[in-house]
Amino acid sequence: MVEIFATEKVKKYYAQFKSFVEEELIPVELELLSSSWEKTESVLNTKRQKAKDLGLWAPHLPEEKGGMGLAMMEFAQVSELLARSPFGHYSVNAQAPDIGNMELMEKHASSAIHQQFLNPLERGEIRSCFSMTEPDFAGSNPVNMGTTAVLDGDDYVINGHKWFTTAADGAEFAVVMAVTNPDASAYARASMIIVPTSTSGFELVRNIPIMGDEGGGYNSHAEIRYNNCRVPKSNMIGHEGHGFALAQERLGPGRIHHCMRWIGICERAFDLMCQRASTRVLSQGKTLAYQQTIQNWIAESRVQIDAARYMVLHTADKMDKLGAKAVKAEISGIKFYVANIMMEVLDRSIQVHGALGITDDTILSFWYRHERGARIYDGPDEVHKKSMAKQILSNYTA
Amino acid sequence: MVEIFATEKVKKYYAQFKSFVEEELIPVELELLSSSWEKTESVLNTKRQKAKDLGLWAPHLPEEKGGMGLAMMEFAQVSELLARSPFGHYSVNAQAPDIGNMELMEKHASSAIHQQFLNPLERGEIRSCFSMTEPDFAGSNPVNMGTTAVLDGDDYVINGHKWFTTAADGAEFAVVMAVTNPDASAYARASMIIVPTSTSGFELVRNIPIMGDEGGGYNSHAEIRYNNCRVPKSNMIGHEGHGFALAQERLGPGRIHHCMRWIGICERAFDLMCQRASTRVLSQGKTLAYQQTIQNWIAESRVQIDAARYMVLHTADKMDKLGAKAVKAEISGIKFYVANIMMEVLDRSIQVHGALGITDDTILSFWYRHERGARIYDGPDEVHKKSMAKQILSNYTA
Amino acid sequence: MVEIFATEKVKKYYAQFKSFVEEELIPVELELLSSSWEKTESVLNTKRQKAKDLGLWAPHLPEEKGGMGLAMMEFAQVSELLARSPFGHYSVNAQAPDIGNMELMEKHASSAIHQQFLNPLERGEIRSCFSMTEPDFAGSNPVNMGTTAVLDGDDYVINGHKWFTTAADGAEFAVVMAVTNPDASAYARASMIIVPTSTSGFELVRNIPIMGDEGGGYNSHAEIRYNNCRVPKSNMIGHEGHGFALAQERLGPGRIHHCMRWIGICERAFDLMCQRASTRVLSQGKTLAYQQTIQNWIAESRVQIDAARYMVLHTADKMDKLGAKAVKAEISGIKFYVANIMMEVLDRSIQVHGALGITDDTILSFWYRHERGARIYDGPDEVHKKSMAKQILSNYTA
Amino acid sequence: MVEIFATEKVKKYYAQFKSFVEEELIPVELELLSSSWEKTESVLNTKRQKAKDLGLWAPHLPEEKGGMGLAMMEFAQVSELLARSPFGHYSVNAQAPDIGNMELMEKHASSAIHQQFLNPLERGEIRSCFSMTEPDFAGSNPVNMGTTAVLDGDDYVINGHKWFTTAADGAEFAVVMAVTNPDASAYARASMIIVPTSTSGFELVRNIPIMGDEGGGYNSHAEIRYNNCRVPKSNMIGHEGHGFALAQERLGPGRIHHCMRWIGICERAFDLMCQRASTRVLSQGKTLAYQQTIQNWIAESRVQIDAARYMVLHTADKMDKLGAKAVKAEISGIKFYVANIMMEVLDRSIQVHGALGITDDTILSFWYRHERGARIYDGPDEVHKKSMAKQILSNYTA
Repeated sequence: MVEIFATEKVKKYYAQFKSFVEEELIPVELELLSSSWEKTESVLNTKRQKAKDLGLWAPHLPEEKGGMGLAMMEFAQVSELLARSPFGHYSVNAQAPDIGNMELMEKHASSAIHQQFLNPLERGEIRSCFSMTEPDFAGSNPVNMGTTAVLDGDDYVINGHKWFTTAADGAEFAVVMAVTNPDASAYARASMIIVPTSTSGFELVRNIPIMGDEGGGYNSHAEIRYNNCRVPKSNMIGHEGHGFALAQERLGPGRIHHCMRWIGICERAFDLMCQRASTRVLSQGKTLAYQQTIQNWIAESRVQIDAARYMVLHTADKMDKLGAKAVKAEISGIKFYVANIMMEVLDRSIQVHGALGITDDTILSFWYRHERGARIYDGPDEVHKKSMAKQILSNYTA
Repeated sequence: MVEIFATEKVKKYYAQFKSFVEEELIPVELELLSSSWEKTESVLNTKRQKAKDLGLWAPHLPEEKGGMGLAMMEFAQVSELLARSPFGHYSVNAQAPDIGNMELMEKHASSAIHQQFLNPLERGEIRSCFSMTEPDFAGSNPVNMGTTAVLDGDDYVINGHKWFTTAADGAEFAVVMAVTNPDASAYARASMIIVPTSTSGFELVRNIPIMGDEGGGYNSHAEIRYNNCRVPKSNMIGHEGHGFALAQERLGPGRIHHCMRWIGICERAFDLMCQRASTRVLSQGKTLAYQQTIQNWIAESRVQIDAARYMVLHTADKMDKLGAKAVKAEISGIKFYVANIMMEVLDRSIQVHGALGITDDTILSFWYRHERGARIYDGPDEVHKKSMAKQILSNYTA
Repeated sequence: MVEIFATEKVKKYYAQFKSFVEEELIPVELELLSSSWEKTESVLNTKRQKAKDLGLWAPHLPEEKGGMGLAMMEFAQVSELLARSPFGHYSVNAQAPDIGNMELMEKHASSAIHQQFLNPLERGEIRSCFSMTEPDFAGSNPVNMGTTAVLDGDDYVINGHKWFTTAADGAEFAVVMAVTNPDASAYARASMIIVPTSTSGFELVRNIPIMGDEGGGYNSHAEIRYNNCRVPKSNMIGHEGHGFALAQERLGPGRIHHCMRWIGICERAFDLMCQRASTRVLSQGKTLAYQQTIQNWIAESRVQIDAARYMVLHTADKMDKLGAKAVKAEISGIKFYVANIMMEVLDRSIQVHGALGITDDTILSFWYRHERGARIYDGPDEVHKKSMAKQILSNYTA
Repeated sequence: MVEIFATEKVKKYYAQFKSFVEEELIPVELELLSSSWEKTESVLNTKRQKAKDLGLWAPHLPEEKGGMGLAMMEFAQVSELLARSPFGHYSVNAQAPDIGNMELMEKHASSAIHQQFLNPLERGEIRSCFSMTEPDFAGSNPVNMGTTAVLDGDDYVINGHKWFTTAADGAEFAVVMAVTNPDASAYARASMIIVPTSTSGFELVRNIPIMGDEGGGYNSHAEIRYNNCRVPKSNMIGHEGHGFALAQERLGPGRIHHCMRWIGICERAFDLMCQRASTRVLSQGKTLAYQQTIQNWIAESRVQIDAARYMVLHTADKMDKLGAKAVKAEISGIKFYVANIMMEVLDRSIQVHGALGITDDTILSFWYRHERGARIYDGPDEVHKKSMAKQILSNYTA
C-alpha cells in the first residue's frame, strides 16, 4: 500500500482482496486457463458467489447498485490485487469490457436501458461486449469507420464489419459504434447503439485466433458482421453523433483500469522471478539469486513497477478530483509507459525461469502472449506518444 | 546474397530455394500450423518429395549420402531462405534436432548404427530426438545431470527424467545423455546412447504445453521418463565419458544453424513490416510508411539484420576453415546477439501490424511465441555472455 | 507542484524560488561557467545576499540556525527548482558537499566544533569539503581505506592519499575519513576528523581535470595528500570507529539531494528541448516539433521525469516520517533510476539541438559532461542495484 | 584483421601502423590534448616526418601523389588502427576535413588549383577547412542556405555566416558552399569555391566552445563571417550549381571515414575496459572482471564492434567495386549504427573505470565529449534513418 493513498476503505479491504486472490484464484488459475470456457465459467460462478458473500462485489459500482463505491484511486489499488491472477476482475464483476459498458450506461443510458440491460449486467447475470474496432480501418485513427446505422422508422438498421469485439461469444448484447450522421464533422458522425446478440443479422464470424488461441466465451475476441441488424431507436446510448465523445469518455477510465491491471501482473511476475531466483540452484549451494544480471533485473523491475504505480495512482487521484479531461496527457503517458514496463518485467521473469518460463506450467507464458496486445489496444504506444507530445508542445509557441 | 560469400553452389541454388519456399511453403504455412501434426505431416511429405525431385534435399549432408555437400558458410545462406517459412528446414530434411543427430552420428557412430539409425534418418524415413535437458538441474550448468546409464552385462540400463526433448513424439529413437562414469571428473561423466522409443520403459509423459500449445509430432517438446530402459552397449555414440565433449561438438554447429534460421525469420518479419507499412492507410492517402517511428524501425531493423548476417557468415566461414573450436567465442556472440535481434524485429513487425499482428492471420504471432525460447535454449543469453567475456578476459592479466 | 506534497511552506516559497532562479541565475549561468572561480564567486556573493534578503537562505537548516526549516520532502521540491541552473544551490548555501557536512556536524559534532566550523559554514562565510574516496581503493567497497589517523598525545596524525575531494580548493576545512582502529571489525575501523586546510602537511596535489576541465574553487575536485597532518583529538566528529556509520547516515539524505537536483536538471533540459523543437524550422513552416521521433522523445521524457519525481518525493516523505534506514532500498533505487533518466533526457535534448547542443551556447553540454559522474559517485549504478536486490531477495528464502 | 578483407597491402602495413600508433602516439596523447595547439603541432610535425620515413604517409592518396594508394576497403582497416589515438590520422595527413577536400579537389579542381592548393595540402604543408553548415538553417535540410556568391567581373563576392567550420583556425583556405544560382532548382543552387583565409573580409568570429573547450588550430570548430570576400572565378571547384552534388559525393566516403575511425575508438575503449576490469581489485583477490554486469558489457561490446566492422568493411568494399551511389542506403545505415555503438562502448568503458573514467587521466573522457557530435554531424541519426527507410520502402508499393 502507498501510505499517502491508503484511505480508510483501501485499508479495510486490502487484505481481504489479497487473500481472496491468493486463496481462491491463484490455486486454480492454470487449470482454468487450460479448460473450456464452459468449465471455467462454472468454477468462476462459485468464486463470484464467494466474492459477493465477502462483500467484495463490483468495487467500481456505487453502493446503491450493490457495489463498493470506491473512488478511481481506491479502485486502482484493489484492481492491482485482483490482477495478480487472470480471473480476478471477472470474479468480482469488474472485468473489461463490461466495466466500461457499466460506467457508460450508468451515466448516459435511459432508465429503460438500465432496466433491461444494465441492472442484470451489474448483478453479473449477463455479459456484454463493445464493438468498435474494424479490420478495414486503422484503429489509431478512430474517425474512420465503415459501420453504419440508418434510421428506418423507429429502428436503426445496422450494417458493418467489426473485429476484436472482446467477449462477444456468449454476451447478451453489444454496444456498437456506428455512423449515424455521415455528413457531420469528423468527430460527430458516430453513435453508440445497443444490439442484443440475439438480433437477426448479428453474425459472430469467428473467435479470432490470437497468439495461437481462439479462446471461447468471455476469453475471446470476435469478428462480427452486422447484417441489417434492426434495433429500436431507443437502444441508443446518449445522443446521436455523440459516439466519439462517449468513446473518449469511456477510454479514459478504461486506460486507467488497464494500467492498474498491468501493475498487478507486474507484481505477480516480479514475485515469481524472485521466488525462482531464490530457489533454483545453479551450482553447489548457489542459486540464481547470486547472479548479478538477475540482481540487476530485480532492482530495475522493482523501481519500474513502483514508478508505474505512483504514476497511475496520482493520475487516478487527479481524475477523481478534476475529471478525466484534466488528465488526458497523463493517461496517454501511463498507457504506453506501464504497458511497456509490464512487457519488460514479464520478459525478465520468463528469462529467469529458463525453459520453465516458456511452458504453461507457470502463468507467465499466458501473460506474455495475451498482454502483448497491451501496447496496441486502446491506442498503440505511438499514438499516445504523439498525442501527449502535442499537448505539451502546445504550451510552446514558435 | 552477400557477394563475398556467394560461391558457385550458393549462386546455383539460391533462387531455387527461394522460390521453393515462396511457392510451396508460404502459401500453406498458416493452414499447416493450425492443423494436427498428422495432417501437416502428410502435406509436408509431398513437399519433401518435391524438394528431392528438385535436388534440394539435405543441403548439409555429403553428396554421397544423398545430400548437397554444402559447406557451413554455404548452408548458412540456404538456411536463411528455408527459415522464411516454419517448415522450410523440415521440407529438405535439415530440421533440428535431426540435423544435429545426423552430424553427430556421421562422425562418431559405428557402422552398425549408421545402418540401423542414421541412413533411414538421412533418407527422411524416420525422425529422431535429443534428450539432454532435465527439469531438476539448471541447463546452464550442463555438468549436473540426474540420468544414469548403468552397464549390466552387455546392456546399459537407463533411468532418468528429461524434458524439452524436442520432437520425441513420433520419433524412432532418442539420443540420450546419461551419466555412465559418476566418479570421473565433471566433464567426463556422461555418455550418449541411442534409445529407440519402442524400448520398454520409455515413457513419454506429455508434450509440454509451451506458450499455450502442446503441439504434436515433430512440433512438440516432450517430458520423458526413462524407467529401466535397457539397450545394447553398442548403442553408444562415441566413447564412454565423451558425452559432454560430443554435446559441445554438436552445439557449436547447432547454434550456427539456429542463427541462420533466425535471420531468415528476421527477413520475413521485415518484409511483412514493410509491406504492411506501405499498404495500411492511416488517413487520406497516407500509409503507415509516412510515420517516422515506423521509418526508424525499418532502418534500425535493416541494419541489425545485415549486421547479424555478416556476423554469422563470417563465423560459419571461419568454422569451415579452422574448425569449431576456433570460433567458440564468436558462436557465443552470435547466439545471444542474433536471438535478441530476431525478437526485436518480430516485436516491431507485430507493432506495425497493429491488432492484426497478434492474431494468427499472419505468421508473426507464431514466431513471437515459439522463438521466445531462442534466448534460452542452447544456453541462455547470460551464459553465453559470461562465457564469451571470460575468453576475452583471459588475454588480460591482472 | 505535486498536489499531494504541496504543503503550506512549499506553496509559499515555490514561486519565489522559481523566479529567483529564472531572474537571477539563468541569465548569467553561461557567463559564470566560463569565468574563473574568483569572478564567479564575487557574482555569486551578490546572489547569496539577495537570497538572504528574500528569506530564501539555507532551506535545509532549522529556523533557529537561520534556515527555512523545510522537511526533506519540502526541500526536495525547492531543490528541483534550484537545480535548474548550476549555481542554484550554492546561491542559497545548500550546495554539496557543505550541505552534507552541515547535516552531519549539526547532529554529531561538539559545541566547540559548532562554534569554530559549523556556524560560519551555515552563515556562508566559509566552505568545506569531504575527503573520503581514495584512488587506490575501489570506492564501491568502502570498507577498504588506506588513510590512517594515529593518536599521538592529544593529537591525531593523519596520513593518506585522497581524490575526488570536491571543492577542497579554497575550503576552510576537510572532513576526513581515516582508519583509527585498524584491528576493529570491517565497519568499525574508520572515524571522521576535521582537518583545516591550513594544517601543515595538507597538500592539494591538483584539481583533477574532469571532462576537460580542472575547474577551480568551489567548482573543482581535488587530489590531496595528507602528510603527517596533526590535528587535535577534539576535531573528531562523533566517536572513534563510527566513521562508516556516519558516512552511511550522510549518504542517505545526500543521495536524495542529488536526485532532487537531477530532476531539476531534467526539467530544464526538457524545457530547452521543447523550446528548440517549437522554434527550429526544418523546412517551410515546419519546425522540428512536427518530427515524430522528437515527439516520442518529448512524451517519453515527460513520463520518465514525472515518474522520477514521484519516486523521489515519496521516498523523501517516507524518510521524514520513518527515518533513513526505512528507505535504504528506495534510496538505492532512486539513485540509479533518476541518474539514468537524467542522462537520457540530456542526451535527447542535445540531439534535438543539433550542432548547437554540443556547444557551450546552451547549458546542456555542461551537464552532459559534469553529470556523467552521477552514475558513478555516491555508489555506481551497479552497486545500488546489487544492494537493492539483496534487500528484496532477503524476503525470499531458498 | 578480417581474413576475407586482408589484401596483400593490408597484411603488409597492418603491423606497422599498429606499432606506429602504439609507440609514437598513445604515449603522448594525453599530454598533447592538454597542450596548446602550437605545442601539439610541433610534436606532431615530428610524428609526420616519422610516418613519411616509414612509408606510412597519406594512405588514401594515389602513389603518384606520394600516398599509399589504398582502396577504400583497405584504408578502412588502416584507419581503424590510426583512430586508436586522437592524432593518428593527422600524423599521416589523412585527417578530416583535409582528406575530404583532397578527394574532392583531386577529382574536380583545375590544375591551377591543384598547383596552388591541393599539392601543398597533400604534402602536409598547409591545412584547409570546409565551410558548409550555417547557424541559421537546419543542417539536416541542406537545401537551405544563406551564404551567397555573386559574380562581379571575374570575381565571386561572397557573403555569409557559417559555423562548425572545423579546423579553420590556421587553415590556408576554406572550401565554401555558397548559393550562386538562387533561381535554379533546389539542388542546383549552390557551388563550391575556394576562399583563402587571408582574403579580406574573411572573419573568424570565434572558435566555438564545444563541450567546454574552444580548442585551437586544427583542434577547433570556427564560426566564420564572409564579409564581401572577393575571390577569382577560377577558384570554383567543379561547375556552377554543382555544389550540392559535390557535397553529396564528398559526404559518402567521408561518412565511411568517420565510421572507420569510430571503430578504432571502440577498440581502444574496449581494450581499456578489459584492462581495467582485469586489474582493478574490488575485494580480496577479486577484480572487477568477476562482476557479471561487466562481463555482459564486454561480451555485448565485442559483438557490437565486430558487427560494426563487418558492416563498414562490406560497405567500403562494395563502394570500391560499384561506386558511392550503390551504397547510399548502406552508408546511412552505418553512419547511425556505428556512431551509436561507439557512444555505448565509450559509456561502458567509462563506467568500468569508475571515477577515473570521467577524469582526463584516460583518453575516454576526451572521446565521450568530442564524439557525442558523431550522432549529429554529417547528418543526425534521425535523418539517416528516414533516408534509409525511404529507399527501402520505395521497393514496396501501396
